Amino acid sequence: MKAAVIGAAGFAGIELVRILLRHPAFELVAATSDASAGESIADHYPAFAGVTDLAFCANADLDAAELSVAFLAVPHTAALAIAPGLIEQGVTVIDLSADFRLKDPEVYEKWYDTVHTQRALLSQAAFGLPEITGDELARAAQRHAVGEAVLVACAGCYPTASSLAAAPLVRGGHVDPAAPVIVDAVSGVTGAGKGATQRTHFCFANDDLEAYGIGKHRHTPEIEQILDVRDRLVFTPHLAPVNRGILATVTMRLCAGSSVRKATELQALYEAYYADAPFVTVLPTGTSPKTSAVVGSNRAQLSATLGTTAGTVVAVCAIDNLCKGAAGQAVQCANIVFGLPQTTGLEGIALPI
Amino acid sequence: MKAAVIGAAGFAGIELVRILLRHPAFELVAATSDASAGESIADHYPAFAGVTDLAFCANADLDAAELSVAFLAVPHTAALAIAPGLIEQGVTVIDLSADFRLKDPEVYEKWYDTVHTQRALLSQAAFGLPEITGDELARAAQRHAVGEAVLVACAGCYPTASSLAAAPLVRGGHVDPAAPVIVDAVSGVTGAGKGATQRTHFCFANDDLEAYGIGKHRHTPEIEQILDVRDRLVFTPHLAPVNRGILATVTMRLCAGSSVRKATELQALYEAYYADAPFVTVLPTGTSPKTSAVVGSNRAQLSATLGTTAGTVVAVCAIDNLCKGAAGQAVQCANIVFGLPQTTGLEGIALPI
Amino acid sequence: MKAAVIGAAGFAGIELVRILLRHPAFELVAATSDASAGESIADHYPAFAGVTDLAFCANADLDAAELSVAFLAVPHTAALAIAPGLIEQGVTVIDLSADFRLKDPEVYEKWYDTVHTQRALLSQAAFGLPEITGDELARAAQRHAVGEAVLVACAGCYPTASSLAAAPLVRGGHVDPAAPVIVDAVSGVTGAGKGATQRTHFCFANDDLEAYGIGKHRHTPEIEQILDVRDRLVFTPHLAPVNRGILATVTMRLCAGSSVRKATELQALYEAYYADAPFVTVLPTGTSPKTSAVVGSNRAQLSATLGTTAGTVVAVCAIDNLCKGAAGQAVQCANIVFGLPQTTGLEGIALPI
Amino acid sequence: MKAAVIGAAGFAGIELVRILLRHPAFELVAATSDASAGESIADHYPAFAGVTDLAFCANADLDAAELSVAFLAVPHTAALAIAPGLIEQGVTVIDLSADFRLKDPEVYEKWYDTVHTQRALLSQAAFGLPEITGDELARAAQRHAVGEAVLVACAGCYPTASSLAAAPLVRGGHVDPAAPVIVDAVSGVTGAGKGATQRTHFCFANDDLEAYGIGKHRHTPEIEQILDVRDRLVFTPHLAPVNRGILATVTMRLCAGSSVRKATELQALYEAYYADAPFVTVLPTGTSPKTSAVVGSNRAQLSATLGTTAGTVVAVCAIDNLCKGAAGQAVQCANIVFGLPQTTGLEGIALPI
Repeated sequence: MKAAVIGAAGFAGIELVRILLRHPAFELVAATSDASAGESIADHYPAFAGVTDLAFCANADLDAAELSVAFLAVPHTAALAIAPGLIEQGVTVIDLSADFRLKDPEVYEKWYDTVHTQRALLSQAAFGLPEITGDELARAAQRHAVGEAVLVACAGCYPTASSLAAAPLVRGGHVDPAAPVIVDAVSGVTGAGKGATQRTHFCFANDDLEAYGIGKHRHTPEIEQILDVRDRLVFTPHLAPVNRGILATVTMRLCAGSSVRKATELQALYEAYYADAPFVTVLPTGTSPKTSAVVGSNRAQLSATLGTTAGTVVAVCAIDNLCKGAAGQAVQCANIVFGLPQTTGLEGIALPI
Repeated sequence: MKAAVIGAAGFAGIELVRILLRHPAFELVAATSDASAGESIADHYPAFAGVTDLAFCANADLDAAELSVAFLAVPHTAALAIAPGLIEQGVTVIDLSADFRLKDPEVYEKWYDTVHTQRALLSQAAFGLPEITGDELARAAQRHAVGEAVLVACAGCYPTASSLAAAPLVRGGHVDPAAPVIVDAVSGVTGAGKGATQRTHFCFANDDLEAYGIGKHRHTPEIEQILDVRDRLVFTPHLAPVNRGILATVTMRLCAGSSVRKATELQALYEAYYADAPFVTVLPTGTSPKTSAVVGSNRAQLSATLGTTAGTVVAVCAIDNLCKGAAGQAVQCANIVFGLPQTTGLEGIALPI
Repeated sequence: MKAAVIGAAGFAGIELVRILLRHPAFELVAATSDASAGESIADHYPAFAGVTDLAFCANADLDAAELSVAFLAVPHTAALAIAPGLIEQGVTVIDLSADFRLKDPEVYEKWYDTVHTQRALLSQAAFGLPEITGDELARAAQRHAVGEAVLVACAGCYPTASSLAAAPLVRGGHVDPAAPVIVDAVSGVTGAGKGATQRTHFCFANDDLEAYGIGKHRHTPEIEQILDVRDRLVFTPHLAPVNRGILATVTMRLCAGSSVRKATELQALYEAYYADAPFVTVLPTGTSPKTSAVVGSNRAQLSATLGTTAGTVVAVCAIDNLCKGAAGQAVQCANIVFGLPQTTGLEGIALPI
Repeated sequence: MKAAVIGAAGFAGIELVRILLRHPAFELVAATSDASAGESIADHYPAFAGVTDLAFCANADLDAAELSVAFLAVPHTAALAIAPGLIEQGVTVIDLSADFRLKDPEVYEKWYDTVHTQRALLSQAAFGLPEITGDELARAAQRHAVGEAVLVACAGCYPTASSLAAAPLVRGGHVDPAAPVIVDAVSGVTGAGKGATQRTHFCFANDDLEAYGIGKHRHTPEIEQILDVRDRLVFTPHLAPVNRGILATVTMRLCAGSSVRKATELQALYEAYYADAPFVTVLPTGTSPKTSAVVGSNRAQLSATLGTTAGTVVAVCAIDNLCKGAAGQAVQCANIVFGLPQTTGLEGIALPI
């Protein structure tokens, strides 16, 4: 099955290239980048020197007719422009942008300050966070199985980490609806994208810890949607001097009616919730995740700890923001839609050290 | 005035050495380390090669009679053993350990799992966080001025950063007493101390983000004491791959009676609270602190932001954990006790890049 | 074919575990570590959480009878003790230690200050640096093909990087025999091993560049042997704050008789030398290697540049010290001995960013 | 004495600001940056928040009449345009650019590919590397003492580190004139300047080691001039993931006539050469320098080691490229010219950890 990455020169795009070059079922036939068209991928990202002779091509040179699937690693609004044509030509679209994530177009328009021009298509999009929205993806897979081109809007990086940490409690009805859900998350600098700015300059980001976009980050409504906690989320993103990795720390207050009272019950709840999730590991009580243990893999590691302050839980999740938080998750979603085992091509293990 | 650093070979101790070697009023006459006694400081920490010929000496070789002040950079329980003798000999003690921080010895005994053997001395100790406990330090300075040797128990690193962020609201009565105060703080690896362990091995700490000691960190009761929020704190410490720096992010819920409703009011409250604090900078609304802007200095940078979720505030504070969070604060406290301007010897500016 | 890693808890050993768990022809049946016997691999290295349930076992619990191959990732002298018994039981040994690398046991005894107790076995060992000692490995493969257990002594990390950079000129007779070959190489901290010491403490290694072991590093005689430049090598290793990666910069003086006069000739020489080496990429003239482009892969990247100073060449090589410099190379050698394509199980691409 | 920094928003410029704000004899009255004119320094570099209210001003707004000294931290060719006017107005100029470093304008014109428009002024410039060109600076100080405005062309960062390492042998006549001097030097990323490019992007520079500009770096002729080794230098610069620091490793071949035969003689030679240099420490035999021991200070640390290969010496020097390699050295030169102790305002100690 032929696959293309559209917007392949960015960080999520190039990670898709890395995964797809070794994927046994999808064959990468095109990697587009208007800005770098004609340039060898290896010249741009030397990890590919000796590995592939592929060059970036222009979007306009893409032959959609030959594709089974296109991965869109483009900025928001660009997917609004590109996705419909691909779907019309029968190409399944796995979108990594924000354009089709928010079910309510009004919310999209408010947070992204632009018009949502594809409301019909939006209503058909499946949300791509398989461990939580498996039902949506299963329905997309059924439609795909009968020949329909489908659209998957993959979850963002912070929403993936935050929601995996919070979902067993919040979606399970264990959390006080009157208390805010507090997410403090730390990301590596790849999360800031490939653009060379003062903020991404090595000397400004190195040896530094900072919070940013307090109260304003566009992943806020996405997390609220996944967890169904509209106007109850306090999300504060942070930056730390690593390339990859997100560590999301979620503090929640249990509701009076929750059955969770002991650490063993909390642990059992989390383990049960992710029992069928091949990429998620709930760590034993007393340990907590490290991003270095998942970087380069599609895995997520989780812990949940009862607070000493009555009725609070601190849940932590570590993912690779470019893999489980972007490219890996996109391939996982594509695997599901195409009826493959979801781990296909995603068996890589993080470097142990 | 002659000064000694007891426990000078550890990270806080050696930072004291750095500061005191350039202090215009205190003269560093001894730096003790039983483990490294006889070894040149410069052999151990090559930053001092060509700067000083001082060697570590054994604790037993300390001549307390000549000292005006002793800085204790020793593990907890060691200060319990050392401080009383120094005080008796008329030496003012600036203690960086945890032994005299917690006013309630029962709380100390519970969290540190040991007996507090110096309850009388504890009751006289001033708590050393000048921006918040200035009154205690002023009283100690008065006692010192009339010839008394005094004991200052300096605040820990996390408590300093967390409390500076939260104090204007929490101590000002603006926070909902029924809601937890959530502190997620990220520290550099110097916070883990000088011991060589798997955890502090470069290859395990580098390229990594993690939470640790969830619900169990011993700074919890100290923050609760400073802010008077006993059993209402959720404190989750994290580790990031930098040497120095703590970034504390505090999420609070305003109480119904708070006068703070707008960002300008919040900003004004913080600026007023720290108007007389020479080391604290409240950043303009819309910016937030970076640890790299304070590392190597005794400064703290703060921001406070109204959350989009009704009634929440996110306050952030950056300090150098070894300086404002340890050695610098200790010298600041000593300056106050000895009647010097509190900035004496602490004028260093962080490297701008 | 069943495989064991002996000494699996160290950095090279655990990288072998990572590779062998995904190798299609070798099945990892045992990972030994006397110090960590009984401990789950995932507890020690959390990258394996959810990936494998394997635990370290004691060396004594190894069932050599079932093995086709054993990888020895043990300190020097330990392989002298272990290898003979395995060979006797018909197990092919791929040794990552230094014990069988130096053909001349006197040289070994001088540099390692110990007795070489296995001189007979030494004389049969193949040196494992396939791009340079392919002939030795081919002969080992032939012996293996007729049922003999063979011993491969894999090249060390610095020797691999240095020799790949220098071999086309030095082994091709293009270098002035009267001039020293200068190797300045920079390694990541994994090269210092897993031991927790002041030197490997994050806070001492981070933000630091240093040279070490000047004139004394034990890889010196190994490089001299590979390049046949005995007593002509000046090798200075350095440490930089990365986990993995070696960058070796080799400065050589061309001899009067060399045919290399122009950059294009130099480039052609290097490209021809490595034309059949699937893991080696000679970069285009004007570019030079980055370790980040090879870390996590078994690849080497090279450049060779004519100096402005008459008759000098600067050749640079980047490898992952734990992969091409240790575990990956060991598996590459095992592939060759067992008649597999040498890239089997080593197709991983470095993270592009 | 009033001082200005021209080009204050770059990395060397802002380090000058940091030093001059605490200098007891020079008063910083202006910091120019045409690109950032009007912007608060603290907004640009938050280390100055709460420290100074100074804002960048335009070059045109500089009041040269009030200045005693101007530090030029501008790109090459810009100093050619700016310096003459300042000198004419009686302002001593300490130039950190390359414009007046090369005594031979032909060499400048070749390497910088531009015309040297100020040959007369060039002939009067003192070269600013006090430990080596102290005579030139002493003459400049004499001219300054009688009322002349003088021009100092400060040495570049690589030339400072490389020359300090090599000078005792090379300038002392101990080195084989037929053998090349090999300099492999590793720099932190501040050396690449403030421009935000793919090369300085955190995610491309982090976790990476690379060589660059092989055979082409413009500091080559400058090192050749200082050491008087024209066409005998092989200089290969490298980049490593630290903000600050240069480690220069110099390999030299002793000449037949050298009196240096033993390690003790080598050590004595180095110690004697730098006996009067307050910023240079020759480390004891067997130890070698670490950049972390000098970063943030104006110090240089050196070691010299006899090679095992007959007649070679490996000398290593660590400096902070922005301080001893730029701003600190400039202030040191200014101190000398103005008749101050050369350490004035440069007493800072590197962070010990």
